[in-house]
Amino acid sequence: MPSYKAPLKDMEFLLQDVFKTDQLWSSMKATKDTTPDLVSAILIEGAKISETLFAPLNRVGDEIGCEFSNGQVTTPRGFKEAYHTFSAGGWQGLGGNPAYGGQGLPKMLTVMFEEMMWSSNASFALYPSLSNGACLAIDAHASAELKNIYLKKLYAGQWTATMCLTESHAGTDLGLIKTRAEDNKDGSYDVSGTKIFITGGEHDYVENIVHLVLAKIPGSPEGVKGISLFLVPKYRIDENESLGESNGVTCGSIEHKMGIHAASTCVMNFDSAKGYLIGNVNEGLACMFTMMNYERLSIGIQGLGLGEWSYQNALEYAKDRLQGRAASGVAHKDKSADPILVHADVRKTLLSIKANTEAGRAFAAYVAMNLDIAKFSDDEEERKKAAALVQLLTPVAKAYLTDTGFESCVKGQSVFGGHGYIREWGMEQAVRDARIAQIYEGTNAIQAMDLAGRKVVRNKGQYFSVFVDEIEAFILEQSSKSEVSKELNKCIFSLKEVLEVLKETTEWLIEESQNDSNAVGAVATDYLNLFGLTCYAYMWAKMVVVSGDKGSDFCRAKLLTAEFFISRMLPQHLGLKHAICQGSGCMMGMGDELF
Amino acid sequence: MPSYKAPLKDMEFLLQDVFKTDQLWSSMKATKDTTPDLVSAILIEGAKISETLFAPLNRVGDEIGCEFSNGQVTTPRGFKEAYHTFSAGGWQGLGGNPAYGGQGLPKMLTVMFEEMMWSSNASFALYPSLSNGACLAIDAHASAELKNIYLKKLYAGQWTATMCLTESHAGTDLGLIKTRAEDNKDGSYDVSGTKIFITGGEHDYVENIVHLVLAKIPGSPEGVKGISLFLVPKYRIDENESLGESNGVTCGSIEHKMGIHAASTCVMNFDSAKGYLIGNVNEGLACMFTMMNYERLSIGIQGLGLGEWSYQNALEYAKDRLQGRAASGVAHKDKSADPILVHADVRKTLLSIKANTEAGRAFAAYVAMNLDIAKFSDDEEERKKAAALVQLLTPVAKAYLTDTGFESCVKGQSVFGGHGYIREWGMEQAVRDARIAQIYEGTNAIQAMDLAGRKVVRNKGQYFSVFVDEIEAFILEQSSKSEVSKELNKCIFSLKEVLEVLKETTEWLIEESQNDSNAVGAVATDYLNLFGLTCYAYMWAKMVVVSGDKGSDFCRAKLLTAEFFISRMLPQHLGLKHAICQGSGCMMGMGDELF
Repeated sequence: MPSYKAPLKDMEFLLQDVFKTDQLWSSMKATKDTTPDLVSAILIEGAKISETLFAPLNRVGDEIGCEFSNGQVTTPRGFKEAYHTFSAGGWQGLGGNPAYGGQGLPKMLTVMFEEMMWSSNASFALYPSLSNGACLAIDAHASAELKNIYLKKLYAGQWTATMCLTESHAGTDLGLIKTRAEDNKDGSYDVSGTKIFITGGEHDYVENIVHLVLAKIPGSPEGVKGISLFLVPKYRIDENESLGESNGVTCGSIEHKMGIHAASTCVMNFDSAKGYLIGNVNEGLACMFTMMNYERLSIGIQGLGLGEWSYQNALEYAKDRLQGRAASGVAHKDKSADPILVHADVRKTLLSIKANTEAGRAFAAYVAMNLDIAKFSDDEEERKKAAALVQLLTPVAKAYLTDTGFESCVKGQSVFGGHGYIREWGMEQAVRDARIAQIYEGTNAIQAMDLAGRKVVRNKGQYFSVFVDEIEAFILEQSSKSEVSKELNKCIFSLKEVLEVLKETTEWLIEESQNDSNAVGAVATDYLNLFGLTCYAYMWAKMVVVSGDKGSDFCRAKLLTAEFFISRMLPQHLGLKHAICQGSGCMMGMGDELF
Repeated sequence: MPSYKAPLKDMEFLLQDVFKTDQLWSSMKATKDTTPDLVSAILIEGAKISETLFAPLNRVGDEIGCEFSNGQVTTPRGFKEAYHTFSAGGWQGLGGNPAYGGQGLPKMLTVMFEEMMWSSNASFALYPSLSNGACLAIDAHASAELKNIYLKKLYAGQWTATMCLTESHAGTDLGLIKTRAEDNKDGSYDVSGTKIFITGGEHDYVENIVHLVLAKIPGSPEGVKGISLFLVPKYRIDENESLGESNGVTCGSIEHKMGIHAASTCVMNFDSAKGYLIGNVNEGLACMFTMMNYERLSIGIQGLGLGEWSYQNALEYAKDRLQGRAASGVAHKDKSADPILVHADVRKTLLSIKANTEAGRAFAAYVAMNLDIAKFSDDEEERKKAAALVQLLTPVAKAYLTDTGFESCVKGQSVFGGHGYIREWGMEQAVRDARIAQIYEGTNAIQAMDLAGRKVVRNKGQYFSVFVDEIEAFILEQSSKSEVSKELNKCIFSLKEVLEVLKETTEWLIEESQNDSNAVGAVATDYLNLFGLTCYAYMWAKMVVVSGDKGSDFCRAKLLTAEFFISRMLPQHLGLKHAICQGSGCMMGMGDELF
């Protein structure tokens, strides 16, 4: 039956060897207390709670799911208690602002714990993830009074939070929302409307739920420029900061979904619910976007975490399952058949997952590092550079980590043959749970449009140059070393090659977009895939640099996996480039009636 | 809510224009009664029963699923009645041997109806599909007596049948099976053992179920050479050909699966059940393989059918759903937003599905045509050539149709955004129902090994030459026409290009396999993808040939979709070739402990 062990060794390898966080964190005021001992303790304890508390609830959560009755949501047995243990352990406030009781740890460390949560129980992980997102928006934009009341409770896990954006007719296009907020002229607003797809909108974990709601104040401009953000609690808070009366927030129903069954997905009705403005009037979307870079990375890690989970279980099965004999002859004479791990195709399947998962983990850490530098560095140049990389790479992280994560889950399922299709083995649940990560928090197509359109074309390639400069400096530095191992040499060569392709394609795209308003949409998803491949090639090169002079199994595996990535996966870029440079003609030329 | 219309126009286009079946069928004795009127009537009636009877049960089947209690399986409400209507209409015997009540229609026609069934209700389609497979094996190998009793009942749909191969420890590797058959020396055997994953092993449709069971007669050789095939009915048949006593066949439980919930997947226990040998002793696998080429093509069509279903519903949604504005400016001023079909990325997603679905449908028809020619042609040369193509292309059809079909379902789901993840829209069910087609009837990895290993390397490229010769003759014929449209020219050019790549790769593979026993396993799945791409390029070229001189919307759509396929999808071959020619080194060099 499914099991999970947090990949602590790989996480420590990334933090210590690849990204040298000891130096980085001690160099910045906000992170200087993040000592190696603390890091180690957090990873070990994070692993323990994930492996022993969240993971065992994963199947139960899928089988039982949430139940809805009379406006109440009951989460599957064990989830509520698990959340209490989680919040009592201080995990909800791990990355929170210390001024309000958070622990202020760097994102680069918290992503490691986030991965463990996503791996062990994606449904469970969603509730704290939503609270985190809301806290970021409150911390950045709410009044000191609101922060003081709400952040403390949220970091402590006494309350949870949601983000209420979508309405039934308004998903990607939030300009269409109909929820209204009337100014009470007493510092509060009356919020009315219906939101759908609200994760954790109603549940039985805690006594209060804090909703961040996008709504329009009557008289505001049309479209996205007339949207404001409001904090709307389920129960009002009285003068003593304790729970007051019910606030006109009710759950109308919950959705029946493909996966993440233990995460409640609610239709939320707001009926003259008292709400408080967060940020300025009509700047609601901007306030939401404050936290987007953090949240989108986290959702990316949902894909990564489930891919890791799938790998671990597929590998176990490949070692246990006896079918057929090795192509080169019997490998295990004492057994009725050889374990399927002897077969090249099974190894290829596993290596594909491993190569994407390890590069993905490195890439998530890399983006998180840039989030930290952008927020905490004392050096303005460094902050600006990191902020540019965060802007550029966030859509790649969200989409590419979830696309490769989903693919990893599908591949892991394949290793099980027919058993992979049976629920009790858990492999099909991973596929279902991973699928949503490609869809929510902005679909991956929207991420691709964000990358190709906003972050590359409209930015005229400035962010992109920062990225290219960094990689080229890296290549130069490595190539000019007196001794370069043949593995590193191959990595650097391939990285250079794919980077050139990405540069050419980017130039083509910026140029083409001058004359064709559909160019971005026509190539965005392929362009994002090419971008993701390049990022992963960069990550593999960075990992190979610090694996070369070590003789351990761990480092040998890194070198061989890098080689697999380069020779068997990276060549996709050849087809992508060719497809991208065809432009939009063949899809825009097709009349609607011809589809 | 989901809907389905059989793509009759495309089916007729393939039969009439592309493959000119009027000529073909009138040229062979066995098919000469398959007149245009008959074909048309069957397609129209097939569409009607699929659209109005099977499709409306699809969601019900998924939500309710099969229930197991006291050894009995209850299928979801409506399924039993639907099966009776289906069999009363003569649909079960559509392709059956006329000597026993079948209608003897060509496979090339029945695949069209099979597609409608898979599209409209994959769970429902499984029961008749299993009966079809069993009938083929019985027809080819059983005694006249058995045929007379069993085929008549099965074609009439009065009984259904199963194939009992897998045991819990023996899936891909059937040599490991433990089920035993003791010779009673009276023409019958006592069959004992437990089989798993038996689709339709128990259900409430009909009064008797006929199991084809692989078992070993004590004293037989080890491994696959000691396997025989037995016909084991649920109830014995007495002298009057009516149902006798229970035969020691019981259902132990049913599986809970990712999808195809309305198809019962049973653990079947055989306890000294009376069975009858089919074919010769120890030639059970060969008997099973008789029908494999038919069954594998049918399962391929499961992927195709679900891809078509997904396309239709995604297209509907893309026309209805209003979000955002066209990149080139407002397209529908009268609406609050434009339908998402205006966006290049949505069009690209839909065109990817359309291009694969239409090429897939053509390819299925093409393989079916070769099955018919191999079976019915009076010309021995033609029969041999067609049989070679069937051998070569069956694994491609099974794997590539289901891989692209699954991908189509995932893409169709994407078009719906968050709504695609909600059960009521049906898109996620298509993903779950399509996934199994990649796994059962020999996993797609096994199909790839069959193609690369048995059909190409071990056959020393002889089958492959037949295929290449045919395409090259086609290219020559088209190129030497006095007038070649620019669309056809582009098609032919691209086909030539990808065919060259496939030829080079095939030569490399045959060569490499001389020295590396793992070469086949290492490259098989990529090789199959390259092969599939080539087949689809060939199909697009064939379709373009007969679309060029027509001015209809239908033909314009064909030309534009062909162009999309060539410019946006076919370039994948560049990366595949590069990856394949890296060989097995990087996966076999990785020690087990390094994974």
